Amino acid sequence: MTYFADTIKNAIRTVPDWPQPGVQFRDITTVLQDRTTFRKLIDAFVHRYHGHEIDAVAAVDARGFIIGSALAYELNAGLVLVRKKGKLPFHSLVEDYKLEYGTASVELHEDAFKPGDRVVLVDDLIATGGTMLAAARLIRRVGADIVEVAAMIDLPDLGGSDKLRAEDLNVYTVCSFEGD
Amino acid sequence: MTYFADTIKNAIRTVPDWPQPGVQFRDITTVLQDRTTFRKLIDAFVHRYHGHEIDAVAAVDARGFIIGSALAYELNAGLVLVRKKGKLPFHSLVEDYKLEYGTASVELHEDAFKPGDRVVLVDDLIATGGTMLAAARLIRRVGADIVEVAAMIDLPDLGGSDKLRAEDLNVYTVCSFEGD
Repeated sequence: MTYFADTIKNAIRTVPDWPQPGVQFRDITTVLQDRTTFRKLIDAFVHRYHGHEIDAVAAVDARGFIIGSALAYELNAGLVLVRKKGKLPFHSLVEDYKLEYGTASVELHEDAFKPGDRVVLVDDLIATGGTMLAAARLIRRVGADIVEVAAMIDLPDLGGSDKLRAEDLNVYTVCSFEGD
Repeated sequence: MTYFADTIKNAIRTVPDWPQPGVQFRDITTVLQDRTTFRKLIDAFVHRYHGHEIDAVAAVDARGFIIGSALAYELNAGLVLVRKKGKLPFHSLVEDYKLEYGTASVELHEDAFKPGDRVVLVDDLIATGGTMLAAARLIRRVGADIVEVAAMIDLPDLGGSDKLRAEDLNVYTVCSFEGD
């Protein structure tokens, strides 16, 4: 890991047994509320995609908006929201994905991209990868080109980043927690 | 209104009868997905608060994160999340507020600010002002100083911005829709 990745990882607060016993929750609010680590976090993404002619950053509801907004602004790109079901008011495409119990859905406005737009898809964390994969499918359905899928944290033991790579998606994460 | 305010207002898409009959929903995704209007939107806030020694931007879940993140980055400030109930993992304060039917709650981590921090509180829209007022109360409870409450859209007929001013809060909105 690079120096800034280490700094960011060390600033993440681990909350044991939340939201349920046995889960080590990685709380990113401690990174965000410190102006120095927040800036390093956003800069990690800005430096990676600057100069790569990104047309739009697609951000996953809701913590993905945090990275997505500052990144889109810095890249002089548009910001597209991938939202949970029932949040987008205009004509939308839907993708369902499996949760541990049941299913969930994400939605995308049909007119969110222009065909061929070069897109970075961002969220805060990749765990099982279900949300990210559903979001990536939505973006591909409207004809945009996903340059990379990016997150702050990877939990590689849950297999999400490998699952995304198996779908021909490039994956970038700033830091990872193994053994989760 | 200034030139950029007019540009932003014209880029907002009005979706009639969503989420229920009689409501004119102001859809900001059309502003965000266009790189030019997205940049103008964020710049409206950056220019207003630049040089005012803002320590932190507090952003309301979830669309407030969009303005809050890019603004905090540009001001070199921290970003603090005011979240819906049950989303924050650490010790939190809670404020309830009334909805048309029933109540809702917002939460803030107890350690989100340092006492005396100068804060801008942001969301996308001020309607009845219930969420913003609850968020402002949380921030005051932990001893931070709210420099201003800011939103992209004001719906002044619903009385929210007046209600916030009655609580000694400065209010800034980029554009407004009357007759809603």
